[in-house]
Amino acid sequence: MTLTDGRRPGSRGVAADHVSLRRNNLSVVLRHVRDLGPRSRARIADETGLNKATVSSLVAELVDRGLLREGLADSSRALGRPGQLVELDGTGVCGVGAEINVDYLAVAALDLAGGVVLEKRVPVDVAHLEPGTTLDRLAELVREAVDAVEARSGELAGVTLAVPGLVQGETGELKLAPNLGWGEVSVAQEMRTRLGDPGYPLHVENEANLAALAAYAELQRAEDGWAGERGAGERGGAPHDLVLLTGAVGVGGGIVSNGHLLHGGAGYSGEVGHMPVAPPGRTCGCGRTGCWETVVGLTALLHKATDRDDPVRDPSLDVEQRLAGITRRAEAGDARTLSALKDVGTWLGIGGAILVNILNPDVLVLGGYFAVLGPWLKEPLEKAIQDRVIAPDGGGCKVVRSELGFAAAVRGGAQISLDQVFVDPTRIGAAS
Amino acid sequence: MTLTDGRRPGSRGVAADHVSLRRNNLSVVLRHVRDLGPRSRARIADETGLNKATVSSLVAELVDRGLLREGLADSSRALGRPGQLVELDGTGVCGVGAEINVDYLAVAALDLAGGVVLEKRVPVDVAHLEPGTTLDRLAELVREAVDAVEARSGELAGVTLAVPGLVQGETGELKLAPNLGWGEVSVAQEMRTRLGDPGYPLHVENEANLAALAAYAELQRAEDGWAGERGAGERGGAPHDLVLLTGAVGVGGGIVSNGHLLHGGAGYSGEVGHMPVAPPGRTCGCGRTGCWETVVGLTALLHKATDRDDPVRDPSLDVEQRLAGITRRAEAGDARTLSALKDVGTWLGIGGAILVNILNPDVLVLGGYFAVLGPWLKEPLEKAIQDRVIAPDGGGCKVVRSELGFAAAVRGGAQISLDQVFVDPTRIGAAS
Repeated sequence: MTLTDGRRPGSRGVAADHVSLRRNNLSVVLRHVRDLGPRSRARIADETGLNKATVSSLVAELVDRGLLREGLADSSRALGRPGQLVELDGTGVCGVGAEINVDYLAVAALDLAGGVVLEKRVPVDVAHLEPGTTLDRLAELVREAVDAVEARSGELAGVTLAVPGLVQGETGELKLAPNLGWGEVSVAQEMRTRLGDPGYPLHVENEANLAALAAYAELQRAEDGWAGERGAGERGGAPHDLVLLTGAVGVGGGIVSNGHLLHGGAGYSGEVGHMPVAPPGRTCGCGRTGCWETVVGLTALLHKATDRDDPVRDPSLDVEQRLAGITRRAEAGDARTLSALKDVGTWLGIGGAILVNILNPDVLVLGGYFAVLGPWLKEPLEKAIQDRVIAPDGGGCKVVRSELGFAAAVRGGAQISLDQVFVDPTRIGAAS
Repeated sequence: MTLTDGRRPGSRGVAADHVSLRRNNLSVVLRHVRDLGPRSRARIADETGLNKATVSSLVAELVDRGLLREGLADSSRALGRPGQLVELDGTGVCGVGAEINVDYLAVAALDLAGGVVLEKRVPVDVAHLEPGTTLDRLAELVREAVDAVEARSGELAGVTLAVPGLVQGETGELKLAPNLGWGEVSVAQEMRTRLGDPGYPLHVENEANLAALAAYAELQRAEDGWAGERGAGERGGAPHDLVLLTGAVGVGGGIVSNGHLLHGGAGYSGEVGHMPVAPPGRTCGCGRTGCWETVVGLTALLHKATDRDDPVRDPSLDVEQRLAGITRRAEAGDARTLSALKDVGTWLGIGGAILVNILNPDVLVLGGYFAVLGPWLKEPLEKAIQDRVIAPDGGGCKVVRSELGFAAAVRGGAQISLDQVFVDPTRIGAAS
């Protein structure tokens, strides 16, 4: 499995020369060990089709760069000298993801093996602050993550910032984030200034896109479990097509098609929150009425399930605590809560079926608050997919809850920063 | 530009060996000459980064296989011996596309250079015939195309059949075509039997997907013109993200994302005709109500614009003749016709904006009857995109009319058959 950010290739094929051939082969070997676990050089050669001398040379370079390390002796060999296993050296290289959302800021630092170096979320009522104040606080969180990476002598591959809005693909600039009340803000430049023009790459990406990448990586890791859930004759292996829905105050969509993030022509894809499914309806953050997020966003649920002075509406409290309150009421059988959840689930299905008809994903992944309250939302959603999707059996689409919850975007941000290392291992360290 | 059918890759990168490296380089050189026109070996070497000896050897093999040929002397060289140009040898290799639609059957044979060897459409009221009878008639058309290819001593790269329904991705079987009244039909096997188990590859694909590929190829060819239409500072070059809408009795969608056809997990993507935009509304061919195609399909237009006994409703007449009748009335200012067109255009915009919000295409291409009546449909559609799309300026999406009209799917079918030759030139001819 490789995360890629799906940036558009050149319009023509590129002839492979020997430098790019070696870089490609370094990438193949590094990803092979990441995906399939520790193994001997001989086994890597067998499995990749590369010859043994080439594999030895590639492994040596990857060890020099701090990306692989020598592991245990290979005890699986019955005959001959035991080979040495090589394994991913996860500790030396890290990526950071940080997120601005309507009612929280978050950060995560992951190492190359997927280990969590630091993960943190703080409740912040972003919509009622000046953008500059929010960016100051986000910069503090990023510095904290960078410090944690440096404390373990790690090399930082890059920082990716997640925002709940439209990010222009070429420039990486935020054009509009209706639920933050932000228009065009040079998030990358503002953050670079606050961080003292750091040497590492710093990019901005839509939060639902990053959450979709994180969900995709999660499903690839669970490949065996996934295959086990399928009946005989069904397409095996991990899914390559998914739609992730981020449920927060707004509703975002991230689309992975054939293993690649779908960005659209200008980077603005996945604006699923504004499908006009409920006309005339309530006024949306975007100024229109009847948008999907006005009936499935967290605000819509809270308005249906709670009174104005209910503490679960308080944006100064952490969103997971507030949702835990809703969960307790649902578990206790509170009629108003259950009715609100059923209503939201039904609307979720009406819009979800549109997405499944258009995109035919293997999986519709519930993220954010949809994941937390999934036990009550899934049934009406699955029913709508069965009823409203033209393809037989909903086109084979399964509904799953992300286990990453509100950490999905920051995990995806850290991963996309790290993924550049898997695509081109020569970006990190110096060959001897 | 390369058409690809976007079939899913293996989950891991594949190490390049020298056989695949050479095959890739043959493909690079062949596509380079196709896309950029006749040029000398030296220029190909310069432009691709391959060395001159390699290019000479690759060109020699492609000439042996009948894919390139020697052209004129290179008059552009000021110094030294004039080089010989090489150019695409389009005549020797052909692909065939054939289509079943609600009220016609069609076929096209194209050669490698895009030249039309044969193109034909016959009005057939498919919904009122047995599937077997329709397939008999389609087999006649395919035989006619194959004969035309053989008459010029061409090698047939393959036949692709377009159907207006759900085609399962792995098996290539038609699962459901509501507007034909067909359930599961083994179209490929039935056709192979009727064609006497031919030696060439024969595949089945959704008609909107093929039309989208044809539209994509059309836009790549028009790359210069396209670039000229953009203002300074806009992203240049040909579009890599498009959505094609096929307007016929049903409405299909074909999605090209980053230069690849989006198939979805099981091959069922692009079912845009059944977005529930107009509840409660008329009953759709799918059995539900309020589907988009009940308000924008050709039947919807004819019901609004004409009386029951109007000859433009007669499915035994060719669809282009019938549309010419509507066009004449619109040009003459007939109020009922203009009102119906405006109504359809407005609904087209409501659904079109959903697609643009989700997919952010560079271009929304009007195909089928939408292309023919585009002069009246475009304005309300463009207005809806400006009004309803969240991204600034409609996300940069342009609305264009396909110039291929009802020939798009058969052209796309022929092209996808031919494209396998560009991906792997060793499929055709024998190397010396």
